[in-house]
Amino acid sequence: MNAFQEMNSPLRTIMTPGPVEVDPRVLRAMSTPILGQFDPAFTNMMNETMEMLRQVFQTKNQWAFPIDGTSRAGIEAVLTSVIKPGDKVLIPIYGRFGHLLTEIAERNGAEIHNIECEWGEVFDQDVIIAEMERIKPKVLAIVHGETSTGCMQPLDRIGPACRERDVLCIVDAVATIGGTEVKVDEWKLDAVIGGTQKCLSVPSGMAPITYNDRIEKVVNARKKVERGISTESDRIDVREPIRSNYFDLSQLQDYWGPRRLNHHTEATSMLYALREGVRIVLQEGLKERFERHRFHEEALVEGIKAMGLELFNDVSWKLPMVTCIKIPEGVDGESVRTMLLQQFGIEIASSFGPLHGKIWRIGTMGYSCRKENILFVLAALEAVLIRHKAQVKTGQALQAALNIYETTNLVMN
Amino acid sequence: MNAFQEMNSPLRTIMTPGPVEVDPRVLRAMSTPILGQFDPAFTNMMNETMEMLRQVFQTKNQWAFPIDGTSRAGIEAVLTSVIKPGDKVLIPIYGRFGHLLTEIAERNGAEIHNIECEWGEVFDQDVIIAEMERIKPKVLAIVHGETSTGCMQPLDRIGPACRERDVLCIVDAVATIGGTEVKVDEWKLDAVIGGTQKCLSVPSGMAPITYNDRIEKVVNARKKVERGISTESDRIDVREPIRSNYFDLSQLQDYWGPRRLNHHTEATSMLYALREGVRIVLQEGLKERFERHRFHEEALVEGIKAMGLELFNDVSWKLPMVTCIKIPEGVDGESVRTMLLQQFGIEIASSFGPLHGKIWRIGTMGYSCRKENILFVLAALEAVLIRHKAQVKTGQALQAALNIYETTNLVMN
Repeated sequence: MNAFQEMNSPLRTIMTPGPVEVDPRVLRAMSTPILGQFDPAFTNMMNETMEMLRQVFQTKNQWAFPIDGTSRAGIEAVLTSVIKPGDKVLIPIYGRFGHLLTEIAERNGAEIHNIECEWGEVFDQDVIIAEMERIKPKVLAIVHGETSTGCMQPLDRIGPACRERDVLCIVDAVATIGGTEVKVDEWKLDAVIGGTQKCLSVPSGMAPITYNDRIEKVVNARKKVERGISTESDRIDVREPIRSNYFDLSQLQDYWGPRRLNHHTEATSMLYALREGVRIVLQEGLKERFERHRFHEEALVEGIKAMGLELFNDVSWKLPMVTCIKIPEGVDGESVRTMLLQQFGIEIASSFGPLHGKIWRIGTMGYSCRKENILFVLAALEAVLIRHKAQVKTGQALQAALNIYETTNLVMN
Repeated sequence: MNAFQEMNSPLRTIMTPGPVEVDPRVLRAMSTPILGQFDPAFTNMMNETMEMLRQVFQTKNQWAFPIDGTSRAGIEAVLTSVIKPGDKVLIPIYGRFGHLLTEIAERNGAEIHNIECEWGEVFDQDVIIAEMERIKPKVLAIVHGETSTGCMQPLDRIGPACRERDVLCIVDAVATIGGTEVKVDEWKLDAVIGGTQKCLSVPSGMAPITYNDRIEKVVNARKKVERGISTESDRIDVREPIRSNYFDLSQLQDYWGPRRLNHHTEATSMLYALREGVRIVLQEGLKERFERHRFHEEALVEGIKAMGLELFNDVSWKLPMVTCIKIPEGVDGESVRTMLLQQFGIEIASSFGPLHGKIWRIGTMGYSCRKENILFVLAALEAVLIRHKAQVKTGQALQAALNIYETTNLVMN
């Protein structure tokens, strides 16, 4: 009756902008037998994870914990808990994930104000600040690293400008957390959502978030404890309560905080994975980890250029962990990706919307961001492009990458 | 700087109504290196998991897939996708989780109609049918197995009564799926939500759901594809779209179906866990698995009674995988639980609301439902009760349980 066999998964070299290869230590942590959610040994791990997340987010915020869902669950939890119907929300769009922020805010009944720039560009911070001045939104929601275009939006002046104007600054740092600087406190970001399946090298399924007391105040004003477990001191009648139970940050605080009020059953094994993932990040050191990402990015970029290919995002605002390559004229991009997967077991990505069919995206994130992987993807891409009769300079890519690897003093894998 | 060490978790005997011990084969599956979400090897596993879920739900429904979140994420996905503001929803409450259904429906703007019975009772199906006749709701939402009270609501006549009246019947089977019959098609249930962390013995973090074309029709009428990835044929202007992006079943169908339209990044390792979990369930056989749950329940119940303790749910509607024990007069229930954990490494549960401090709940679910665990919890409970100066008949509990184990012809662990 049941014809399905035990899992027998091929082993891949994953060079997409996520999900990427999981650190073997994280995989091992996931196979640990579980604990009950209120077992002191487990709540202690929850607390440890919060503390380590604060360090990764470079914040002193009290609240730093994961939402039990994929990255967009983290985004939705923050936006749904903060935005009331009719609230003005300003969302600059420079790629797919700005549309996602818009979509989620829209479903929460926000009055949306978008500004858009071409995919491949980012905004001059002054443009965003001027628009904020004009719209006077309650919330500015913006993507830090747009994996769809391989671009990174500077935020160091946007955060402080929001603070001055009492605008809540909510940032999607799913792609950047753990791979490059995300200075939550220094940049005065009010809420930040990270991703696990990218530079943290933890499987998808949790979304670490952090937020400060400015967000907490908004959330607490909408707080409503579940009737099945509320006590008399809990207010039941709340105006404009948060529309979601699952994503209700006020309830999640009671679960992650000292009250330990039952909400969902924490996703135990994913928490183990996240705990181990952030532990590894801190063990490596944030500065060292960011340098490692930059280092391998350079080797990849030099290799790509030496092959005679053109980068789509060869700009000062390039996202360090995503390298976008223009698909050469006359080459079928999907056919190249298929051959890479079928012959080499290597996965690279295409893109979305206006860039679909125009660029390939190679991710160099977390555990995937290793010398062997960079060298292998360069070798494979060259071979596959030759098979596709593309004009490439042969034999140059690996030499260029090895020039980086052999001449550096950095001891990096 | 980073003082946190590698995980070093104690090993527990988990006898709560969830989360319970995870099958070692599932833990092993979770440590498999991951695949990209559109890797054919991975989408094939997604399809296999859907097919196995159909078998576990005993349904021919096209849609049977997990929501990436804990059980209540599954409940919220179904209710949020189906309920529009102002829709009439009838929710019978006989424990904590009926309140949760109410809470979620309420946050979606439903016009709620509750009927309640005392915790420890269930409803005569005719009472619910009569109320449905009176209210004429769009949706009936009801819990199948209430872990808070250890009671199970019969549904075999409620489902058909809903169908006759064109009411959508949505069932929370989080506690029962994989542990006792949940006959989705035979009982004419329109949408059913299961849980992983109970009788499936998979960690919390995914919620398998299934629903039929009656639900799909409602969901599709509200369908709205994300702007960042929509094509011209996708409608953008939809009246009363689903309020959540993450829980939008119409979008999830496009991701789990042949269109494979990008939504979230599937929680890879949790999917591996779920695939292995349901594979093991089908390998054991549904009938055999349900019998095993009944068999160990009997041994536990006989042991508890032989000790002289009284069951709270010694009724024909007892939930087979949750045994509720009245805390003896003068005994501090929490102190007993603490000693069980600290001295024996055994976790049992307390309860909520009106039953808080009045009962203990022992779960016998999935991989935790094993002979050694039953015998160990009986031995430990007796010893701890003696330490708490409770009146117990000593030396009888294990004898009663062994009488079951030694005289049966069933070859069961």
